[in-house]
Amino acid sequence: MPSEFALIERYFKRPAPGAVLGVGDDCALLRPTPGHELAVSTDLLLAGTHFLANTDPADLGWKVLAVNLSDLAAMAATPRWATLALALPQADEPWIAAFSRGFFDCARTFGVELIGGDTTRGPLAFCVTIFGEIPAGQALRRDGARCGDDIWVSGQPGLAALGLAHLLGRVVLPEASREPCLSALHRPHPRIALGLALRDRAHAAIDVSDGLLADLGHILVASGLAARLHWQHLPRAALEATANSDLARECLLGGGDDYELVFTAPPALRDDIATLTPSLGLELSCIGTLTDGNPGHILLEDPQGRPMTPGRYGYDHFA
Amino acid sequence: MPSEFALIERYFKRPAPGAVLGVGDDCALLRPTPGHELAVSTDLLLAGTHFLANTDPADLGWKVLAVNLSDLAAMAATPRWATLALALPQADEPWIAAFSRGFFDCARTFGVELIGGDTTRGPLAFCVTIFGEIPAGQALRRDGARCGDDIWVSGQPGLAALGLAHLLGRVVLPEASREPCLSALHRPHPRIALGLALRDRAHAAIDVSDGLLADLGHILVASGLAARLHWQHLPRAALEATANSDLARECLLGGGDDYELVFTAPPALRDDIATLTPSLGLELSCIGTLTDGNPGHILLEDPQGRPMTPGRYGYDHFA
Repeated sequence: MPSEFALIERYFKRPAPGAVLGVGDDCALLRPTPGHELAVSTDLLLAGTHFLANTDPADLGWKVLAVNLSDLAAMAATPRWATLALALPQADEPWIAAFSRGFFDCARTFGVELIGGDTTRGPLAFCVTIFGEIPAGQALRRDGARCGDDIWVSGQPGLAALGLAHLLGRVVLPEASREPCLSALHRPHPRIALGLALRDRAHAAIDVSDGLLADLGHILVASGLAARLHWQHLPRAALEATANSDLARECLLGGGDDYELVFTAPPALRDDIATLTPSLGLELSCIGTLTDGNPGHILLEDPQGRPMTPGRYGYDHFA
Repeated sequence: MPSEFALIERYFKRPAPGAVLGVGDDCALLRPTPGHELAVSTDLLLAGTHFLANTDPADLGWKVLAVNLSDLAAMAATPRWATLALALPQADEPWIAAFSRGFFDCARTFGVELIGGDTTRGPLAFCVTIFGEIPAGQALRRDGARCGDDIWVSGQPGLAALGLAHLLGRVVLPEASREPCLSALHRPHPRIALGLALRDRAHAAIDVSDGLLADLGHILVASGLAARLHWQHLPRAALEATANSDLARECLLGGGDDYELVFTAPPALRDDIATLTPSLGLELSCIGTLTDGNPGHILLEDPQGRPMTPGRYGYDHFA
């Protein structure tokens, strides 16, 4: 069986021309771009909690990087580097080869270099730390939203959660819905290009990892605002993917794992932001407005303007 | 029970005046010092593999940061920031409070700011990513060693491994040895000050995490050199800590977990380096010489100049 060091050499050491020193020493060495801030995020993903243990390893390799890239997208950062620490139950070389392929597919797609890591034996787990750069002062933060801002969401939140519900046997998706839902679950596309386009347009942004309402709630609390959402303006793909409308609604409002962006921007930019859809090939929905009111409160209105009960808000690991 | 977000707020959010933005958004934002390189390292620590599950949580909090700081020490970097991702089996608040206390004790001692993280439910695990800074070009790398360099080691390698052997019932340490061995195991002191002092003195450095011979071997392979070590020049505390001389020798040569530094420097600096001992309060032993020869080969000589068989070299997670 190959040693830990041989595995790293074979599957996780790739040229990193954007670093002074990459994988293989006590530390990697980076030379950050002058005049920029460094955006850093870390995520720990565990089998059973964040993904099913039997997930295709190439999909998993893609996803562990993609979910971190999504945090960079939400700050409007340009991806640069990542570290990867992984625990594996055994040195299953075909599994590791497929995982590595998926990881580096994602890395190439988004211009990320793997510059360091750690490999150990243990229950399947991954910890990625990601590094991006932003011209100083241009990051999109949660606390920058302003009263009167439009609230936008990208893509079709809820599909990934429906895909997971299908895999767990909670629903049987019709043939036509399966592929888009499973693809949203297994191969999320972090909205890096959208984040960059929002640098001088949006006031605040967050990625949807805990659920649409829960993550919007984080912006509201940080910015001291409330929100009014219009049910009929929410993107509808999740609702159309299954006849189980309760589940679809739960997935749309509370499903994480799509890694879409929720952002707020001045209404004067509504037409300008709408032009991003054709240029990015990404649907953008204006779903409501930021209001004064109890910070964090979300009012969801039906087409007749009546309040709806949003139900489950999002995921809390210790709730 | 407090929520995930309340736990983070209470136990892991501390002021980070050296960061533009710390814990609480999608990413932290850092403004690296102009003219410096950023040194980055990540370590994944799992209960059962890297520490005993019943380890005192305050000790564990100290240690998960200390082992990462040791990587910065080995590169001669000044500590700046860290992220912490943790998986906990349950939200045991007294446990988390003690862990947090140990972590921030270590952070304060070495001037590190916690700037981000992730909290999840799962088998006890920690992933720390650490960030340090070094004036561009001054990092100590593994591949900088030169033929004829002296080989040095700091402190008393082997004590931590003896402490672990005691806890595992492999040996019963005499009363007088217990405290130093258990303290080396539970509260390792990363050799940051030594690393900084070596910036313009050493050619190469590494921290002893896999074992003295194994980690020296990494320098040798990276630098294309061999080594001759003198048994009688090795620091002797581990040998004096127990009457079990086979175990003591195994711990001295192959025990990780002390987080001492092994470094190489020109013989002309021998006296100069010796003066670091009183100024740092840290024993430094000149234990051998770098030689031409089969890269990675280590010849260990007894007092009569005869080769000794070094035995177990170090830890490979998949061996």
